Amino acid sequence: MLSVNSLASNLVGGLIRHSERLNMEVSELSNGATVVDCGVESQGGYDAGRVMAEVCMGGLGNTSIRTGHIDGTPVPFVDVETDHPAVALLGSQKAGWQISSGEYFAMGSGPARALAEKPKETYERIGYSDDADEAVIVLEADGLPSDETMGSIADDCGVSPGDAYALVAPTACVAGSVQVAARIVETSVYRLNELGYDTTKILGGAGTAPIAPVRPDEAMGTTNDGQIYYGSAYLTVEDEEVLGYVEDVPSENSSDYGKPFFQTFKEAGFDFYGIDTAIFAPAEITVNVASTGEVMHEGRLNAEVVKESFGI
Amino acid sequence: MLSVNSLASNLVGGLIRHSERLNMEVSELSNGATVVDCGVESQGGYDAGRVMAEVCMGGLGNTSIRTGHIDGTPVPFVDVETDHPAVALLGSQKAGWQISSGEYFAMGSGPARALAEKPKETYERIGYSDDADEAVIVLEADGLPSDETMGSIADDCGVSPGDAYALVAPTACVAGSVQVAARIVETSVYRLNELGYDTTKILGGAGTAPIAPVRPDEAMGTTNDGQIYYGSAYLTVEDEEVLGYVEDVPSENSSDYGKPFFQTFKEAGFDFYGIDTAIFAPAEITVNVASTGEVMHEGRLNAEVVKESFGI
Amino acid sequence: MLSVNSLASNLVGGLIRHSERLNMEVSELSNGATVVDCGVESQGGYDAGRVMAEVCMGGLGNTSIRTGHIDGTPVPFVDVETDHPAVALLGSQKAGWQISSGEYFAMGSGPARALAEKPKETYERIGYSDDADEAVIVLEADGLPSDETMGSIADDCGVSPGDAYALVAPTACVAGSVQVAARIVETSVYRLNELGYDTTKILGGAGTAPIAPVRPDEAMGTTNDGQIYYGSAYLTVEDEEVLGYVEDVPSENSSDYGKPFFQTFKEAGFDFYGIDTAIFAPAEITVNVASTGEVMHEGRLNAEVVKESFGI
Repeated sequence: MLSVNSLASNLVGGLIRHSERLNMEVSELSNGATVVDCGVESQGGYDAGRVMAEVCMGGLGNTSIRTGHIDGTPVPFVDVETDHPAVALLGSQKAGWQISSGEYFAMGSGPARALAEKPKETYERIGYSDDADEAVIVLEADGLPSDETMGSIADDCGVSPGDAYALVAPTACVAGSVQVAARIVETSVYRLNELGYDTTKILGGAGTAPIAPVRPDEAMGTTNDGQIYYGSAYLTVEDEEVLGYVEDVPSENSSDYGKPFFQTFKEAGFDFYGIDTAIFAPAEITVNVASTGEVMHEGRLNAEVVKESFGI
Repeated sequence: MLSVNSLASNLVGGLIRHSERLNMEVSELSNGATVVDCGVESQGGYDAGRVMAEVCMGGLGNTSIRTGHIDGTPVPFVDVETDHPAVALLGSQKAGWQISSGEYFAMGSGPARALAEKPKETYERIGYSDDADEAVIVLEADGLPSDETMGSIADDCGVSPGDAYALVAPTACVAGSVQVAARIVETSVYRLNELGYDTTKILGGAGTAPIAPVRPDEAMGTTNDGQIYYGSAYLTVEDEEVLGYVEDVPSENSSDYGKPFFQTFKEAGFDFYGIDTAIFAPAEITVNVASTGEVMHEGRLNAEVVKESFGI
Repeated sequence: MLSVNSLASNLVGGLIRHSERLNMEVSELSNGATVVDCGVESQGGYDAGRVMAEVCMGGLGNTSIRTGHIDGTPVPFVDVETDHPAVALLGSQKAGWQISSGEYFAMGSGPARALAEKPKETYERIGYSDDADEAVIVLEADGLPSDETMGSIADDCGVSPGDAYALVAPTACVAGSVQVAARIVETSVYRLNELGYDTTKILGGAGTAPIAPVRPDEAMGTTNDGQIYYGSAYLTVEDEEVLGYVEDVPSENSSDYGKPFFQTFKEAGFDFYGIDTAIFAPAEITVNVASTGEVMHEGRLNAEVVKESFGI
């Protein structure tokens, strides 16, 4: 079985060699853990964001960037595709590990989750486990993790601190905007899982979403709005059972739909994990049933709200 | 002279190292031939399809995938470009070798054709020959080839079976959809050749086509319809002689134009090689004459028919 | 500090190994200088153009090609992004070195400029210097440089001729069209610099522009028109000081706006450096202020003029 941590640690090896070009700062902590700053104190950028996204998918997905338009305004978009949807997206990319260590808080995602089984039911559900000797985590956070935090992460993963690697960027930076936008296919798979569908039946996924402008006061809102109001996902699945779920996937199913996500976030007291999960969804989705040939499209792009959120 | 088989066998070496990530199954047959299953019993996917397409062009073309829209529905598209149109597309990518061995049937394409000279007139016409010691063939087929089939292919190519490599996928899978869509520039070069134009005067080609949903009962139709009704090609050619041919390139010139290709295929008794070849063409083409600066655009995208074909 | 010449010479090493596939001809002159013909006597193409563009940015930018549309006509576009705007674009990619040696004339761009400090004020302004032992220059020229020309370039760069590398293509070829189109983000940074803005505050840039058809009599016009009338740039900058400049960036600010650039060029007696510089600008620009979250969009695409220029 493919190891998302082994594949990701290969990518980390490559990025360390190119860290200066990627505007990243690599530090080894006293316990031997490696922290790669992709945007906290370092500048990061588009390439750093792409690397974070590909590490986040455990090396099992591709990303590329191109400049598109939203209602006449040029905006960069990220394109993503994966041939391992359940493992790469639910088992790795999803921000499913809330890191809280002293005063340090971060949303944790990426391969390390598979070692620490965060959360356990995900790995039971998708039938995946990883036993790599190295752990790679991606942290969406405003600060860099300490020795203690990395030691605790390594512990949870069952690896020694010297084999633990973290890529870190705040939400409000170019790399942060890229890595969140690159979750567009993940949101669709996440929603299907939440709705009860067995996502191991998804054969492949592709999608695109705009890379949000950096808006420090509302970054948690703008980055998600790119997906919620202007993200497109396309899945190929094994059998037609999925058709009963597709209509419920797009963000328009959420009662919070129709306003910038920051308002919803504020109303929820800025507790990311306390929000109605139906809003974490693509604006639209196409699903193709490979066994029957059926194709179903639900949802729609909503330029109006994304423009309000992006300030364009 | 560049060897499409040598370049392709380098790519095959790479894909074998990454076969698990690519959802491919690699087998060595008893006669030493290597068969790479990209979607028959293995799952394959977008990356497998891109690898098949790049191998098919003898390593002389690039592909990338992004999600676009057809009349408001998100669909992935493949982009292709090549700087060696005649050799990469006519001399290698074209599905010009009908493999029939016992009960096994496959449409053969890729570099091996250049060794076996399938068909000979193509290679005389484009003035290309390859004398590589390794042969790489791409098979669009519902099953994997036997030792006997691979031995016979190796024989025709003048290589030993241990130096013969096949990449195999059915039409009806994600990799199959990708590799057919990636023929969008080839169809334009193929049409010009059929019309009598000397395609060695084409300096470069680029294009894009939607990746058809997997529709098992009509896959031979849907995959071709992506090109016929929604594929765009752009060629740069040496001299203005081409201008007399461009109007006849787009699919709209075919008497079969206007309905999903599967209907045409059915009416032809499912004999792929028995169909009016004018339909194997891009929906539209732009041609630039490099020596004079002229630009000519013919054809148009037809969302209506491609939507009917894709079931969207 | 990153060395644009070292990074570029790594790329040159790679392209030399793949020169046949890239349709490039590599020659070593009697003084040891290396000249890579990307389109003068060799054919070059899309890949050659991309390599030229990435070398031109000193290895600090990415490019990719896809086929888009201008008012219904398919045309290839190049996408570019960089995380080092001031150094990669002003300090390297800008065509800021007029090479004139005997009868030989070329517009020089790329990393070598940073060694020769062409012009010196640019490097003072962006606070960048390179002290690599190898110099890499990109020449937009109708002919290949002689030993003498390369010796003189090496001299200006303070390297021995054996460590000097030139990539050469005329404006009127596929590679020439690609490498000029890939200057779309550079034009926006160039304009901001001309207007007095400190471009080291630009954190990242992305953009896209159509790749002009090859039109030999008017190539200097058509290639620039892709950017002037249909190029889109997107910049992320540190602080809001930039907002006072954005409105003046797009090409529509130039008194020469509204007609194909070739007419302007002709009216200026074909002296590229004698033209009102306000026209060397993207058709439109979006700027995001990372510290405040503000977003500003100025300019617009102008299909009418670009179509007239491209002959479509």
